[in-house]
Amino acid sequence: MKVFIAGLGLIGGSLSLALKDRGLADEILGMEIGRERAAEALELGLADRIVSFEEGVEEADLTVLATPVDTIPLMAVKALNRVREPQVVIDLGSTKGELCEVIEQHANRGRFVAVHPMWGTEYSGPRAAVHGAFAGRTTVICEREKCDEDALYTIEELFRALETPLIYMGAEEHDLHTAYVSHISHITSFALANTVLEKEREDRHIFDLAGGGFESTVRLAKSSSTTWVPILLQNKYNVLDVLREHIHQLQLMRRMIERDDKEGLGEMIDRANSIQRIIH
Amino acid sequence: MKVFIAGLGLIGGSLSLALKDRGLADEILGMEIGRERAAEALELGLADRIVSFEEGVEEADLTVLATPVDTIPLMAVKALNRVREPQVVIDLGSTKGELCEVIEQHANRGRFVAVHPMWGTEYSGPRAAVHGAFAGRTTVICEREKCDEDALYTIEELFRALETPLIYMGAEEHDLHTAYVSHISHITSFALANTVLEKEREDRHIFDLAGGGFESTVRLAKSSSTTWVPILLQNKYNVLDVLREHIHQLQLMRRMIERDDKEGLGEMIDRANSIQRIIH
Repeated sequence: MKVFIAGLGLIGGSLSLALKDRGLADEILGMEIGRERAAEALELGLADRIVSFEEGVEEADLTVLATPVDTIPLMAVKALNRVREPQVVIDLGSTKGELCEVIEQHANRGRFVAVHPMWGTEYSGPRAAVHGAFAGRTTVICEREKCDEDALYTIEELFRALETPLIYMGAEEHDLHTAYVSHISHITSFALANTVLEKEREDRHIFDLAGGGFESTVRLAKSSSTTWVPILLQNKYNVLDVLREHIHQLQLMRRMIERDDKEGLGEMIDRANSIQRIIH
Repeated sequence: MKVFIAGLGLIGGSLSLALKDRGLADEILGMEIGRERAAEALELGLADRIVSFEEGVEEADLTVLATPVDTIPLMAVKALNRVREPQVVIDLGSTKGELCEVIEQHANRGRFVAVHPMWGTEYSGPRAAVHGAFAGRTTVICEREKCDEDALYTIEELFRALETPLIYMGAEEHDLHTAYVSHISHITSFALANTVLEKEREDRHIFDLAGGGFESTVRLAKSSSTTWVPILLQNKYNVLDVLREHIHQLQLMRRMIERDDKEGLGEMIDRANSIQRIIH
């Protein structure tokens, strides 16, 4: 199979490595913005050739869109304008509502499969690509009923070969749940980093004392704005909804601390503990 | 050296294992609340004998207070009432202001060293004790100028043998910095867990989708209320101060998302990214 990957950063680059490592692609064509990143991606072996978007889509059996989510809907339309059976187009973006709405009435809608592998790290760009990504993590496929049977089957087989369990959802449902489980965690982490950078003027102390749990809550704050601004704005209404609840929970804890309310605080923490029945 | 550890949970139990593994203690006496936990601690080899508080303090060369922080100030006074040179008493608590204030005028103040190893996990109780704790993490010693020289030296040598770099601070300074770097992370994590448990009624989805960064920000939410309610209340004013700033940062992000302020949001995330110059 010849695969074209538009965007050879953390996600696209790691998919490229996974496909090569498992012998799932004969040739990988790639696209990157800017000469420097393109050269870097080639040098890192993330693509065999750098091509234009049009060349890539036309030549490849499978086109993968792995650019920031605000660029995906238009690229999806442009790709669908050019593909014919049995070619398939997928995206790997973290939001699906707008994308699925934009391509809904496209004559070639059936050739598109909306895919979200629940894997990532806080790093970005071609150098962030790693071997062994995706395996063991769930991959969400959205609106499977709108895909041509053969296109869906190709993608299901491909992701099964990457050892990622598949689950199925509507696009709206996907955006709701990822707001709860992924997007809010990033906001919290960004805000926590800024809180500490604002209050703690002496870097040395953060560095020395950070054993106390700080790294784990703030790790995601290294994530890039190029990736995350589009995600937070595309999933605006769900994100705002969860963010309001999160601020409310923090205000509840604040009031309990102010009033020395041992019992209330204990109950809140005990309730939070029950997250361990889900996350081990 | 004969060591008495009051509280054989995560911290006290892990210290016991570290002392034994490195041959730093000939005998470890232990105290635990309740027969069950005491039996468990014995069975896990966290102590050679279970004794009463009075017996332990009198018999041991070194008494270690490793119980929840609200119980430490009174125990510190009771221990100091009973010790004589060259016996030493230390605590391993996460807050120091109240403790240091309570023992300030004690005739035996010099025999006490206030110690905080910046190490922990989200688990608690004797079964949470692990081998290899503390090594490589900073240990803070507070108010070293109030310790007898020989007592301070004993403790410095002991923690150096555990391979933990030592830093020195005042008690107020310690409580301020740990609020920024440790306590706020726990609050955030508790609040995030409750947010998601409140909003996401279907556990299955949290479980399937949690690859997206959720585990790392919510890991600390498993921490026990027995440990954390006393810490948050003892460090109330510093914690409230950082918590107010954190809520403010979240509100800023919320307003930017509401207004589709790409630029502002990008700047906030870029600023948060600079945390990586400190945390690698």
